[in-house]
Amino acid sequence: MNDLRDAIRAFTEKRDREQFHSPKNLAMALSVEVSEVAEHFQWLTEEQSRNPSPEKLAKVREEIGDVMIYLTELAGKLEIEPVEAAKAKMRINEEKYPATLVRGRANKYTEYS
Amino acid sequence: MNDLRDAIRAFTEKRDREQFHSPKNLAMALSVEVSEVAEHFQWLTEEQSRNPSPEKLAKVREEIGDVMIYLTELAGKLEIEPVEAAKAKMRINEEKYPATLVRGRANKYTEYS
Amino acid sequence: MNDLRDAIRAFTEKRDREQFHSPKNLAMALSVEVSEVAEHFQWLTEEQSRNPSPEKLAKVREEIGDVMIYLTELAGKLEIEPVEAAKAKMRINEEKYPATLVRGRANKYTEYS
Amino acid sequence: MNDLRDAIRAFTEKRDREQFHSPKNLAMALSVEVSEVAEHFQWLTEEQSRNPSPEKLAKVREEIGDVMIYLTELAGKLEIEPVEAAKAKMRINEEKYPATLVRGRANKYTEYS
Repeated sequence: MNDLRDAIRAFTEKRDREQFHSPKNLAMALSVEVSEVAEHFQWLTEEQSRNPSPEKLAKVREEIGDVMIYLTELAGKLEIEPVEAAKAKMRINEEKYPATLVRGRANKYTEYS
Repeated sequence: MNDLRDAIRAFTEKRDREQFHSPKNLAMALSVEVSEVAEHFQWLTEEQSRNPSPEKLAKVREEIGDVMIYLTELAGKLEIEPVEAAKAKMRINEEKYPATLVRGRANKYTEYS
Repeated sequence: MNDLRDAIRAFTEKRDREQFHSPKNLAMALSVEVSEVAEHFQWLTEEQSRNPSPEKLAKVREEIGDVMIYLTELAGKLEIEPVEAAKAKMRINEEKYPATLVRGRANKYTEYS
Repeated sequence: MNDLRDAIRAFTEKRDREQFHSPKNLAMALSVEVSEVAEHFQWLTEEQSRNPSPEKLAKVREEIGDVMIYLTELAGKLEIEPVEAAKAKMRINEEKYPATLVRGRANKYTEYS
């Protein structure tokens, strides 16, 4: 992940794009890229989404690559480490949604968020 | 990242949530979480977004944690490795947007996407 | 719709918010509000989404209100009339996706977009 | 707006697309179209977004048309009237954010949402 972060930084600097890459703009770009992932699934049933064709999967992989690029860049600018942030959030979720309580009433349970 | 992926899987299974976590639903959830990141920046100037207050930064960190959780889970279901996907996409971008060509006409240049 | 547009403008001016409501910021805010609509549906099956509970419906109605507010405001700033823009887009779609061609191969057909 | 709603319904039925247009799927599609609006503004400054070029404006108009189409269709399925929903939400906002209280502390004020 550090390699990725450095590669993105070098890419952006070499192209003189740093000035445009404020956290605000990166958050917008991240949101747009995530929509490009979602677009591949919007007319599929859930079942179909579990078994995408190889062609669709290849496209989704590219879009997930874009999401990861912008997420890494945004987090880097804010000196946040995304995997650490995710692990910290998982610990919060563990306390907030104890398995014994949540299990079996899945429909009403509003997800970790 | 593998630890994170396994922790998410265990969390979801223990709470009987696997049935809801189709790629389609995870793509929607990812999109919602990314909007929660963007929400923190929407009324800030770009300059302000570069210097968030410690309170805002703590909240953004939590939201980035959520984004990373759903991205990891979605990618895991599709057997995509997000960091590898990002590196592969960076190689495509390197070819598509040569630094010598892009540099200096930043305004017209539509980003890697 | 004109009444709505004027009411939003008066609301924003009276609160000295005009300065923050650039098209860029309004596009972000619109995106965030749409996610709040989507959030209500993300863990439902398609079937469930066709029959929401009265409580959920009331919440979705509020979020759709927010979406319509920001859409009206954004369009107003750009001197675009959303209903006219939609009708113009429908005419493009009619030509782009002739019914005789599209009918019966729904799965492959990528929607009007 | 009623004309628009009826035209969309006829378009969808003639193409046998009704089966795919659950509220859940329409909420996803709406979210994707809104991102296509946001994409036009993501690398612009706020100032630039206030003065888009005629070419950009024409594209934004098409995307706003798409947003309005899906919003109308989603709301129609749920028997929600978007303009009425927006007006109802404006009344809530008037009470929640009194002008006398909000005015002058714009920075801290978190928008109607």
